[in-house]
Amino acid sequence: MKLCRYGPKGSEKPGVVDSDGHIRDLSGIISDLTPDTVRLSQLAKLTALDIAALPVVSGTPRYGVPVNNIGKIIAVGLNYADHAAESNLPVPPEPIFFTKAVTSLTGPNDEVMKPRDATKMDWEVELGLIIGKTCRYVEKSEALSHVAGYVLVNDVSERAFQKERGSQWVKGKGCDTFAPTGPWLVTPDEVGDVHNLDMFLDVNGQRMQTGNTRTLIFNVAHCISYISRFITLQPGDLVITGTPPGVGEGKKPNPVYLNAGDTMHLGVSKLGEQRQTVVPFSLTGLEILG
Amino acid sequence: MKLCRYGPKGSEKPGVVDSDGHIRDLSGIISDLTPDTVRLSQLAKLTALDIAALPVVSGTPRYGVPVNNIGKIIAVGLNYADHAAESNLPVPPEPIFFTKAVTSLTGPNDEVMKPRDATKMDWEVELGLIIGKTCRYVEKSEALSHVAGYVLVNDVSERAFQKERGSQWVKGKGCDTFAPTGPWLVTPDEVGDVHNLDMFLDVNGQRMQTGNTRTLIFNVAHCISYISRFITLQPGDLVITGTPPGVGEGKKPNPVYLNAGDTMHLGVSKLGEQRQTVVPFSLTGLEILG
Repeated sequence: MKLCRYGPKGSEKPGVVDSDGHIRDLSGIISDLTPDTVRLSQLAKLTALDIAALPVVSGTPRYGVPVNNIGKIIAVGLNYADHAAESNLPVPPEPIFFTKAVTSLTGPNDEVMKPRDATKMDWEVELGLIIGKTCRYVEKSEALSHVAGYVLVNDVSERAFQKERGSQWVKGKGCDTFAPTGPWLVTPDEVGDVHNLDMFLDVNGQRMQTGNTRTLIFNVAHCISYISRFITLQPGDLVITGTPPGVGEGKKPNPVYLNAGDTMHLGVSKLGEQRQTVVPFSLTGLEILG
Repeated sequence: MKLCRYGPKGSEKPGVVDSDGHIRDLSGIISDLTPDTVRLSQLAKLTALDIAALPVVSGTPRYGVPVNNIGKIIAVGLNYADHAAESNLPVPPEPIFFTKAVTSLTGPNDEVMKPRDATKMDWEVELGLIIGKTCRYVEKSEALSHVAGYVLVNDVSERAFQKERGSQWVKGKGCDTFAPTGPWLVTPDEVGDVHNLDMFLDVNGQRMQTGNTRTLIFNVAHCISYISRFITLQPGDLVITGTPPGVGEGKKPNPVYLNAGDTMHLGVSKLGEQRQTVVPFSLTGLEILG
């Protein structure tokens, strides 16, 4: 099942995408997709629905982040060997993880804002997942049964903020609009083998990243199990699993960074695609955050 | 005004502490203290109340985290020069910040759990603040007017997780129960000069940390302004501002770390005190997290 939230920022409704690609309205069933409604026990009620009986949504509404009120975002870094190499960093002996601020979340096709002081803004196509059941010291063999579904994420990054302004990466990872997420939350049954998904990212129509989740250093189960030894993951938490080679900072002969007007187009097979335009930072672009 | 949440874990009620130290029940006025009710525009309705007219709560209930559903925790590191020295790290030229997971929050006198693999568990008394108004590119001169109130926090840390398991500190900062917070959210008018507050922390009755917020490298306004250039702070977000010297890893001739059975007692003047006992990790200690 492909779950989504559609409509204007701040007033999204829950929906499900049918086999013809039409959004069907779920707001007669649940008021929103939230950490509570993606809890596996609750999610089972949605996956049991007869989609064909739900009303079709007309037009082509905006997609929002597919789960509202995500509690936290944990991001695994350097999880593709070739990406570690292009970042001039060794392959880590165990997962490295950091966080993105929940205020960085934005819809999959919303504008991405360049912060005022940004000089090295970059892209990262990633496989993400939403937790459906509390994870704490979860064994690898049990980890995937705690996943509500998978989701496409662009882990937008500002490399100067991340690496040249102190040691802690969140400074360059947590900016507003730096986590376009969606369009869909795709349940595991529909994804199939999560370790064989193609990934791509284009900037201004030029292919920048090409990858496949089969080359993850630490696979999805490993990441979830590992994180849960340090931090409890709860329903509605977002975990992103790292990016394949081809980020801007690794380009030869010179790094390539994003500027206002640039467009990104990215996708992970089974999880849909995103298109974003980079715009200058604007306070009015963020009214939804208050 | 001293705002609090009191009662058993997961069913706390909002309260206010009167000048005699008695909790007065606020649940007739608001259902809970949340990011919405600590928004400055909403908070003004509470501070205008006649406390003496509110019902006195009998007994000595447990204190919870004074704001429910805190959206994110941003922590400034190495913000006291002597603490940077004892950590063998240079004084940073600009603030370093990292995050703690919201699942690390716990009441001020609740048990602190030692993670299963922990070997270097440590303490950090800190001045914290709760945001009352959205902060984004806020000037230093305007920053303090975005604060709902101040709060005592123990930034419990596991140094091996933090520093020996990859570069990103959250691994040793975000564990369950690693952020005892409270007992009170104290409004700025009652705190007075936030840059002249005494701080202490004892372990097993022995004084370990002594400090005063006047020796902050980057003062509170600077921290808020700086963070807001990278990450938008929203009402209900918690910012903690760093710890003075005396943490366990800096003790001579040998570091001192926490073990099950150890007790911590800490305080910041005007903000109250906390007492915690360290216990082994237990799944049943966390039923509230689901």
